[in-house]
Amino acid sequence: MQAPQAQPIPACPSACMIVIGNEILSGRTQDKNLAWIAKELGDLGIPLAQACIIPDEPRIIIDTVNEMRSRFTYVFTSGGIGPTHDDITTQCIADAFGVAVERNPQAQAMLERQYRKGPLNAARLKMADIPAGAALIANPVSGAPGYRIENVYVMAGVPGIFQAMFENIKPELKGGPKIRSRTIAAYITEGTIAEELSAIQAGAPDIAIGSYPFRRNNRLGTSLVARGTDPSRLDAVYLQIKQMLLTFTSEIQEDDIAA
Amino acid sequence: MQAPQAQPIPACPSACMIVIGNEILSGRTQDKNLAWIAKELGDLGIPLAQACIIPDEPRIIIDTVNEMRSRFTYVFTSGGIGPTHDDITTQCIADAFGVAVERNPQAQAMLERQYRKGPLNAARLKMADIPAGAALIANPVSGAPGYRIENVYVMAGVPGIFQAMFENIKPELKGGPKIRSRTIAAYITEGTIAEELSAIQAGAPDIAIGSYPFRRNNRLGTSLVARGTDPSRLDAVYLQIKQMLLTFTSEIQEDDIAA
Repeated sequence: MQAPQAQPIPACPSACMIVIGNEILSGRTQDKNLAWIAKELGDLGIPLAQACIIPDEPRIIIDTVNEMRSRFTYVFTSGGIGPTHDDITTQCIADAFGVAVERNPQAQAMLERQYRKGPLNAARLKMADIPAGAALIANPVSGAPGYRIENVYVMAGVPGIFQAMFENIKPELKGGPKIRSRTIAAYITEGTIAEELSAIQAGAPDIAIGSYPFRRNNRLGTSLVARGTDPSRLDAVYLQIKQMLLTFTSEIQEDDIAA
Repeated sequence: MQAPQAQPIPACPSACMIVIGNEILSGRTQDKNLAWIAKELGDLGIPLAQACIIPDEPRIIIDTVNEMRSRFTYVFTSGGIGPTHDDITTQCIADAFGVAVERNPQAQAMLERQYRKGPLNAARLKMADIPAGAALIANPVSGAPGYRIENVYVMAGVPGIFQAMFENIKPELKGGPKIRSRTIAAYITEGTIAEELSAIQAGAPDIAIGSYPFRRNNRLGTSLVARGTDPSRLDAVYLQIKQMLLTFTSEIQEDDIAA
């Protein structure tokens, strides 16, 4: 038996994030870009619809980029655009689009400014090799730029650089209505309220209600998150959820923000 | 120009993790299961080859599970097996395998033990509805089991429960040689050592060398990670990397474990 489903949030632009890097898949590095860009995109009204974490393998990078750029309005990649032998993202992006990688004079000028003191050697110059037709994304932290080709934004993996690059492209991203959310939590387990919550969801197809169990201070509880684009509808559904919870317990946390 | 590539680590079992949940894609919740299982699987000699983070949408869940179970030795999912309306993973797994969801007496007994005090209502009993032919995975934390169907392990999203379930299935996972790694770091930027590192990688096709820039205390540096299955080869390549770094700086951090 299929449970009743929330209707998807009204049609708007969508995004996919592709994290490229063996270091994430080995568990050595905890990815920090995904949750960050998810929030930024939500604020812009561009829901992050899917994310992939893939290894430094050309065939997989090329196929994933090609699949995702056909499915989503925007694709963002992180990782693999540095100067070392394991930085293969740029060649893969070029292969995905069927274009050449070529020395970009503007990118070279950016690197020359960065390496006034240190040597701009062949390895560093590799970071000025960009897929033909791409538009550069400035990197105020360490010089070497990212770039956009069609709807694919290729950015660095280091969080500080990733975030700085994203700030530079934000003005050109076209969002839909901002997705708002309100959260309420209680020390009630999900099974207690599941039936009542399902009824509220069934009556509110324009609001997506999520239910997330948690454990804090050795107590089990549930966070209920309502998401939608219409603030007054969101408030109305939030109030319904709150009133439902109050029939079970008076100990509720309104607008709870903890995960 | 394609950079020289490390050879893939010798053939061994592979794994894919599928994180199911709108709360991860909205940025509300930072996923903690991925990095954790990646390390556990590495220790078992089962490299995590890919990961997907997908929304609570039936078509996407079904298609992703079917693609990944055909491509990888093991598939692990997290999330969506609770009692509320937004927990749709079980129906999707059943649809992916073309089997029915049916009340599982053993799962029901587990829930009855858990809810001796509270009511085992219809919503909670939904957690005893399991795809036909699946083998249960005990949940020592909150009772409701996960399950395995063929090569797909379906587990809870709450990290404490996810980890406890994984401990229960560990004995049945068949790993290859354990993947070992050694890390060395220095306050040198990647471009300084890229050429020398590339030469070391070219001479060591059985060891994968990764280079990861970082910023600590406002200083830029690079972590170099060598990974492979043969401890003596790993040590030999590590030593080569160390000697190379020492030609640039004496300030190195051996067996550095910070990200």
